[in-house]
Amino acid sequence: MPTISVQNLTQFCEAILQGAGVPRHKAEVTTACLVASNLRGVDSHGIQLLPYYVDQLLANEMDAQADGAVISESGSCLHFDGQNALGQWVAETCCEHAVRIARENGMALVVAKESNHFGAAAWWAQKMRAAGQIGIVMCNASPIVPPWQGREGRLGTNPICMSVPGPWLLDMATTTVAAGKIFKAFLNGQPEVPAGWAFDSAGVPTTDTQSAYKGMLMPLGGYKGSGLAMMVEILCAVLSGGAMSTEVGAIRFRGKKVRVSQMFLAIDVARFMPVDEFTARVEHLVALMKSTATAPGYGEVMVAGDPEWRTEAERRKNGIPIADGNWEQLVKAGERVQVAAPALQ
Amino acid sequence: MPTISVQNLTQFCEAILQGAGVPRHKAEVTTACLVASNLRGVDSHGIQLLPYYVDQLLANEMDAQADGAVISESGSCLHFDGQNALGQWVAETCCEHAVRIARENGMALVVAKESNHFGAAAWWAQKMRAAGQIGIVMCNASPIVPPWQGREGRLGTNPICMSVPGPWLLDMATTTVAAGKIFKAFLNGQPEVPAGWAFDSAGVPTTDTQSAYKGMLMPLGGYKGSGLAMMVEILCAVLSGGAMSTEVGAIRFRGKKVRVSQMFLAIDVARFMPVDEFTARVEHLVALMKSTATAPGYGEVMVAGDPEWRTEAERRKNGIPIADGNWEQLVKAGERVQVAAPALQ
Repeated sequence: MPTISVQNLTQFCEAILQGAGVPRHKAEVTTACLVASNLRGVDSHGIQLLPYYVDQLLANEMDAQADGAVISESGSCLHFDGQNALGQWVAETCCEHAVRIARENGMALVVAKESNHFGAAAWWAQKMRAAGQIGIVMCNASPIVPPWQGREGRLGTNPICMSVPGPWLLDMATTTVAAGKIFKAFLNGQPEVPAGWAFDSAGVPTTDTQSAYKGMLMPLGGYKGSGLAMMVEILCAVLSGGAMSTEVGAIRFRGKKVRVSQMFLAIDVARFMPVDEFTARVEHLVALMKSTATAPGYGEVMVAGDPEWRTEAERRKNGIPIADGNWEQLVKAGERVQVAAPALQ
Repeated sequence: MPTISVQNLTQFCEAILQGAGVPRHKAEVTTACLVASNLRGVDSHGIQLLPYYVDQLLANEMDAQADGAVISESGSCLHFDGQNALGQWVAETCCEHAVRIARENGMALVVAKESNHFGAAAWWAQKMRAAGQIGIVMCNASPIVPPWQGREGRLGTNPICMSVPGPWLLDMATTTVAAGKIFKAFLNGQPEVPAGWAFDSAGVPTTDTQSAYKGMLMPLGGYKGSGLAMMVEILCAVLSGGAMSTEVGAIRFRGKKVRVSQMFLAIDVARFMPVDEFTARVEHLVALMKSTATAPGYGEVMVAGDPEWRTEAERRKNGIPIADGNWEQLVKAGERVQVAAPALQ
């Protein structure tokens, strides 16, 4: 697969966003989030998203000039109105509030409504981690997942993410896989997806990529995945007063704003023990996992974050591989705003 | 199956605990928690647990006199030492702190170490709900679950529970099923458990109840279930400074204290909107789920909490059914402390 350097990809994406009317500082924040996800190997949440953002911007369905505004701040709680701003800009602002409030009060819960897609939750949870805090991030999403026993989309992939000081980082959709994995298979012409990923549009399990793309994602493990998705929907959309379930739009479809809600929870570790001690305890716990004898057929026990850190080390060295379908979309997005594409290697 | 009234079961369990040296007020709190779980149909976390508590008490491995103590309180954070007290008494105390702090600061995070089994998390999360708050409760547990790709127990069933004002209540182990479901099958002589519940002791999936009982539980959906269990382990045991992973004991085995950690997170809904408005929004979200067309083979979409509320209505009316194996254990526990059993109906 052809590759591109972090620097070239970053410049290209920033230029595209600026070409679509996004102020420079917001283009930088947004691009940093997307490219970081490609670096981590989470291509579903990387620059694959940018062409959709451009669609939204050029259709005037996302407001590049809006900054969002604090509705209220009270104790550890902050309520934010995203005002249809870029999701990454809302998240950047909310993370700053969360870190500040957790420093003051030991904890923070920042909940934003009327936001847009903010890329991978892991990028934001790690902002809290960088401040010596535990960061928990959740968001609701387009209603492409049926509740357990249903056959119409009502919930999003509604991810749960937690980052901590120490070698562990969880960022998981509450479906078997993230929607972006099916989009990626579709964009890149793969005929089949694994069993357990999706239903067709009639609510019947399918492995056909076309049917899965037009169908729905499966909740993780059945009814428990639905329960977790509802937990996220309540903590984000119900609590924010924002759009929920079928009221939420989608970055891939025009005519409706996205209107997602996002939640940022920060815990100041130092209220319980020094951060160094906490970090050592996480390291000890991770070591206990890795010392586990492996099950038949496996050579190693990994913990959340391991695959992505390994991929990041490799991609920083060798560049970011870009699938043909994704690159074609990005180049087209560039053409729409008169930005020429750099060469791939 | 024979049944027993709530009143008779409550009196019997309180008497057994008092016979084992538990002060009256703690016996009442503990029994209320267990019987509530039977009422909800979650028999795995009901009076089935009491004989093990009695074993712990009579072996001097749990301290019926200890109350636990606050280590520190700072802003929204409270750090608690359970001092090996009854888990239900630790939880009762921590919930009171969580509700008080969330009223003062909008949020509370109470983390307790050196606790014991506290029954079903749902009972405690509902204490916050009763105060107009969102209650999130987690705890670590005996290391009977291998991390994904491992074949030795390193994590507990580590439940995630959330209760909110409104008709929805999540309380789920991060394994496919709670350990109590396998114990229940074992105690009651059922030869098989469903596929996907457990590994045998070599790390190979099994449906044989004996092998499952001696083996290990499966993480929910594979690596994501392991990730969620680690999230719980970190928020409870790492943050509390308590026992983690293989340092944790088990109520079914003597010679080692249980030493679990528990986390109680409370959010004061009123900081975001009036509780009535929040409740109406939860009701609306639940109605959106229930209006979903059903998948082939299903007649209804239910949400978390539905099956238990229905069972509770039925059992309050007709009494609590008690399986032979569970009753035999409870009667034996009574005999150990000279408390006679009431008659079943």
